[in-house]
Amino acid sequence: MQDVAEGLKAAMRRMPGPVALVTTTDPDGGGYAGLAASAVIPVSMEPPSMLVAINRGASAHATVARAGRFCINLLCTGQTDLVRLFSSSERRAERFAGEGWSVHDGLPWLPAACASIFCTVGTTQHFGTHELFVGAVDDVIAGAGTEPMGWIEGDFARMLGLQVQSA
Amino acid sequence: MQDVAEGLKAAMRRMPGPVALVTTTDPDGGGYAGLAASAVIPVSMEPPSMLVAINRGASAHATVARAGRFCINLLCTGQTDLVRLFSSSERRAERFAGEGWSVHDGLPWLPAACASIFCTVGTTQHFGTHELFVGAVDDVIAGAGTEPMGWIEGDFARMLGLQVQSA
Repeated sequence: MQDVAEGLKAAMRRMPGPVALVTTTDPDGGGYAGLAASAVIPVSMEPPSMLVAINRGASAHATVARAGRFCINLLCTGQTDLVRLFSSSERRAERFAGEGWSVHDGLPWLPAACASIFCTVGTTQHFGTHELFVGAVDDVIAGAGTEPMGWIEGDFARMLGLQVQSA
Repeated sequence: MQDVAEGLKAAMRRMPGPVALVTTTDPDGGGYAGLAASAVIPVSMEPPSMLVAINRGASAHATVARAGRFCINLLCTGQTDLVRLFSSSERRAERFAGEGWSVHDGLPWLPAACASIFCTVGTTQHFGTHELFVGAVDDVIAGAGTEPMGWIEGDFARMLGLQVQSA
């Protein structure tokens, strides 16, 4: 089974994904919380819903679960510093201190991102290390960001369209 | 609600994702079936598991559900013709006719892909237009493919690492 896990990890390093900051607000007065996530997919367009897989060991996991709401901010290539900030537990206090944040319906979001998707948790399910949160989409705000940021081989990436390139 | 759905569709066009061919074998003798998918994420590394969201209107949906097994082939930039073949219902008979296919444990897979991930369906759940299949990973085969193919703005894409680029 170790071989399968190692093989899957190697394959996942080569699977393109988005870079998102999933944010929420502690309903018990603990302030804002968030985490960087790449395991984000649309579930259905009718009704509009999104799924995000969150590691149960992440510090923001319990807050998302308690809040029952979250915002998926799809980042742009200019926002790599923000991801590093959310990946450093020592700098947790700085995460929402910058000027880049707005608040919509009580949730922090990033106007400079490519898009911010506001969700209310519908169903959740535990699978090993992670919990899947399926959220009904309440609102979508198209951000000011122009170039979507991807994730591959443990590195941030820009996407170069093959047809655009060959045109 | 129409506005939310339209906003979500626009946001999803700008969300980077992988391009996968999800394949299976009809347990009732109907042969191989498959579909192109971009809504694929890892769920947990302990135990190793993957999730794929499949439109319930896709022709291969019922076969995956009946088979209870599937293979996620993560494609490379050289395999765009194969995606077009799987996106054309008129050319369904040609899908598995090419020389590029092998069979492992009864499931068709692509040695030229970046990776092929063999799964047994654990849990499933319906959400509107789609069904989520969470599969326990039985095997992972690293393919011969070198450059992972992404999906953005309705186009195939290559991923250009930002650190690699700036190095």
